[in-house]
Amino acid sequence: MAEHPIDCELCSGDGGEVLHRAEKFRVVLVDDAAYPGFCRVIWNNHVKEMTDLPIADRSALMAAVCKVESIVRAVMQPEKINLASLGNMTPHLHWHVIPRYLDDAQFPSPVWAAAERQTPPSSLAQRQALLGALRSAMVAQF
Amino acid sequence: MAEHPIDCELCSGDGGEVLHRAEKFRVVLVDDAAYPGFCRVIWNNHVKEMTDLPIADRSALMAAVCKVESIVRAVMQPEKINLASLGNMTPHLHWHVIPRYLDDAQFPSPVWAAAERQTPPSSLAQRQALLGALRSAMVAQF
Repeated sequence: MAEHPIDCELCSGDGGEVLHRAEKFRVVLVDDAAYPGFCRVIWNNHVKEMTDLPIADRSALMAAVCKVESIVRAVMQPEKINLASLGNMTPHLHWHVIPRYLDDAQFPSPVWAAAERQTPPSSLAQRQALLGALRSAMVAQF
Repeated sequence: MAEHPIDCELCSGDGGEVLHRAEKFRVVLVDDAAYPGFCRVIWNNHVKEMTDLPIADRSALMAAVCKVESIVRAVMQPEKINLASLGNMTPHLHWHVIPRYLDDAQFPSPVWAAAERQTPPSSLAQRQALLGALRSAMVAQF
């Protein structure tokens, strides 16, 4: 497998607004109107599974995921954090860090399930208003 | 929060067939007819988020998740591994380790999405037949 396959969208692009760029990974803000504050931690090299990484790299990646979780919790004040590494469509290692709320579209189901409701626009606006603080916190704390 | 809330199903029960029991976590086989080989790594104490754990415990838990991933890959030979810590319904830290296949019911969507097809019974039977080897590998390698 080439290190950067030409047809991989996480090799050819950043995959979102970059909040922090490290040597081996980057943290991006996902553009999802239903989930303000949804971040991803994306490994820079094209690797498929966590266990394809050397152990030191797994640790570095999970430390980054946990740092993002901490920052998202502090700024976004979610009911729950959801973490996931799936990659069925884009088999390039990336972690979803998703702030969840009692009134969000899918709660308590995963965000990939059918919507149970529409999130109240006032809740979404409140969360959107925190994104500036989220960007600042990522810069300050990474 | 009490250490073991009485209404938490992962405090009151094992949460599946225990394949490995460690001091701080356990590995269980999930009883899901559509996903043979689906395992969970469950933290024994009632903790909500990864970042509620001390850093050493996060590392120990992720090392266990990666070990389960390795064993599931070796025995079940999936197309992809899906990892997730959600806990919206049961906010007691647990990791899903799910072997995914091109012909499974939801591929390439997450297992929580609507089914796209029925997995061929012959594929399910083939995967069910590997569960004995999966049990043995967990005992041998943990």
